[in-house]
Amino acid sequence: MKILEGGLDNLNVKTAGIRNGKNGLALIVFDQVCKAEGVFTTNRMSAAPVQITRERIKNGIQAIVATSGNANCATGEQGLRDAESIAWKAAEELGIDEKNVAIASTGIIGEYLDTSLIKKQIEEGVKSLGKNSSKAAQAIMTTDTRPKELCMDFGRFKIAGIAKGSGMIHPHMATMLCFIVTDAEFEGGVLRKAVDETLNMVSVDNDMSTNDTVLLVSVGDKRVDGFAEALRIFLEEIAGMLIADGEGVNKLVEIRVVGAKNKGEARAAAHAIADSMLVKTSVFGNNANWGRVAAAVGYSGAEIDMERMKIWYGIGGKKILLYNGAAMEVDKEGIEDLMKKNDKIEIVVDLGLGDGEARAWSGDLSYEYVKINASYS
Amino acid sequence: MKILEGGLDNLNVKTAGIRNGKNGLALIVFDQVCKAEGVFTTNRMSAAPVQITRERIKNGIQAIVATSGNANCATGEQGLRDAESIAWKAAEELGIDEKNVAIASTGIIGEYLDTSLIKKQIEEGVKSLGKNSSKAAQAIMTTDTRPKELCMDFGRFKIAGIAKGSGMIHPHMATMLCFIVTDAEFEGGVLRKAVDETLNMVSVDNDMSTNDTVLLVSVGDKRVDGFAEALRIFLEEIAGMLIADGEGVNKLVEIRVVGAKNKGEARAAAHAIADSMLVKTSVFGNNANWGRVAAAVGYSGAEIDMERMKIWYGIGGKKILLYNGAAMEVDKEGIEDLMKKNDKIEIVVDLGLGDGEARAWSGDLSYEYVKINASYS
Repeated sequence: MKILEGGLDNLNVKTAGIRNGKNGLALIVFDQVCKAEGVFTTNRMSAAPVQITRERIKNGIQAIVATSGNANCATGEQGLRDAESIAWKAAEELGIDEKNVAIASTGIIGEYLDTSLIKKQIEEGVKSLGKNSSKAAQAIMTTDTRPKELCMDFGRFKIAGIAKGSGMIHPHMATMLCFIVTDAEFEGGVLRKAVDETLNMVSVDNDMSTNDTVLLVSVGDKRVDGFAEALRIFLEEIAGMLIADGEGVNKLVEIRVVGAKNKGEARAAAHAIADSMLVKTSVFGNNANWGRVAAAVGYSGAEIDMERMKIWYGIGGKKILLYNGAAMEVDKEGIEDLMKKNDKIEIVVDLGLGDGEARAWSGDLSYEYVKINASYS
Repeated sequence: MKILEGGLDNLNVKTAGIRNGKNGLALIVFDQVCKAEGVFTTNRMSAAPVQITRERIKNGIQAIVATSGNANCATGEQGLRDAESIAWKAAEELGIDEKNVAIASTGIIGEYLDTSLIKKQIEEGVKSLGKNSSKAAQAIMTTDTRPKELCMDFGRFKIAGIAKGSGMIHPHMATMLCFIVTDAEFEGGVLRKAVDETLNMVSVDNDMSTNDTVLLVSVGDKRVDGFAEALRIFLEEIAGMLIADGEGVNKLVEIRVVGAKNKGEARAAAHAIADSMLVKTSVFGNNANWGRVAAAVGYSGAEIDMERMKIWYGIGGKKILLYNGAAMEVDKEGIEDLMKKNDKIEIVVDLGLGDGEARAWSGDLSYEYVKINASYS
């Protein structure tokens, strides 16, 4: 596998990105109606564009219209009409069928869209369609500090995409948009499975967005082996990009739980560690506070045997055993020094009960997180 | 009901409180073996004292020994032996049966107890036994900024207690110790029910402690009506005290969910709002960001109908309808001003589906929270 510069520009798609202050618009347009699969927020307070796109992708997709700055959520009937009018406008400008236009939005909840601005942006975007992957990635940013685009070349086929994340990144992908295109054929269900192993194991805070949308579109018909695994690798990389640019995140925490009774319990334990505010703040403070990790595993619902459990912290290439049925004697200051010097921390927990394994990704919780979310409105 | 000064000193119990730096010891001693009930953490990573006390209270209780500064958790076999040796020492000094001594600890996880210090504190404590409720309340503090004691006089009977809380306060009472004494008789199960309605509906962060212990002891035999409701009122007051002194908490948030399909769903929705980091940070920023409340309800698991849901913020005596099936036009600056001037915010959600109701309590999430938990070790 090779990583290529240029994101979506490596595949046969046209893109555009427009931004007016905090209001951005991204367009991704395909030559024909393409097979698509989607994974959406499971939040019952789902935004208007989610409600609409969830139905539309069944028809196949010829264009994706994504807007940032306003989530168009909790906006009732008018929100649905606004979302439909955007899709309609894009279809008209592109000369395609409205039912093949997917829409997605991200931003503040509970305000009505400025549809006249968005319609102007659509006109402008359609005129500038071309190889603009990075502009499109920029257009969907909210509190993200950098655009996220990625292309992986697996030899026989490529997977490329743009994404935005930042706050509310939680199990089930809060305020995450991710649009993935490949020239390979894919089987139904492949996206759901890959998302469950990657994006759904990411936690910045504990909130789940109303707008999460991940779309996978095929622009080719290459029959290939190993697409599912390739997609998982691709989304794991995206997950890392989202965490690294999470609100106020300075350190990436990679969590691995092994030895759980089964996979479900491993996932529950990994999630609990990833979500723990006390673990996050201890990482921010360069504290290898493994007791908080143990406590999180203890309330995760996973079966544990305190005497069989082991906890390691992996820092700067060193793997330090901190708990082995009981607390270990360790060089606390040495570990604190190591944590200060490294911006990636690995936490490994072996429950010693079975062969259930899972991974999750998290970050530290900093003053900056509080600042961003106290003022965002 | 009247609130009396002096906490436990209003009942027939002897107390002592000793503190050496961050290591405190509280003693509560009864004239005879008393009927007791306990509610403990459901964290499977439960601390040694929890494992021991959970069994012991079945015998009835004549003394409670509580230590702060070290949780004696994740300490394996040695932790159990240490905890037992403390109970044994207290029994010896008091001339009572070891099996009637309850123990509880709070503090850092994964370090071994300084049992020689604690044994000295027990000797000192037993010598100073008397009307020392506030000293005992002080002795169990960790990151608490003030001791918590309370006595309520219900006429026919009294309920009094001391408590400590602060961080990790979450559903299922993380790092909370609460020792309650009454001169009324009580029915089995009354404590569990009252805790479920009060202490278990409190959230400072989302972590659950390994050491939570709530004990209810009867020193009298007054048969009274309404004890269950009195206990609920007592614990609701304690819950408010714990939140108000939660780590980095400046504002108290009281959450009320009505109109849920049933009580369980109302509790789930209230919990989700109470736990939401985004709701907490928005309160810190004086932002009536009801969209985050709606999102939390949406992922809580409770059934919702977006068109029937209503959300109010109650601030300074005013009840402001912010969402009524769709976003309402409101005076944002006026609301921000109100929030700045008030340190208690009420959030009311009506799901409009049934008669399920629940309450929960939360606080804001501030820089101070991050600071305390980044450095605590």
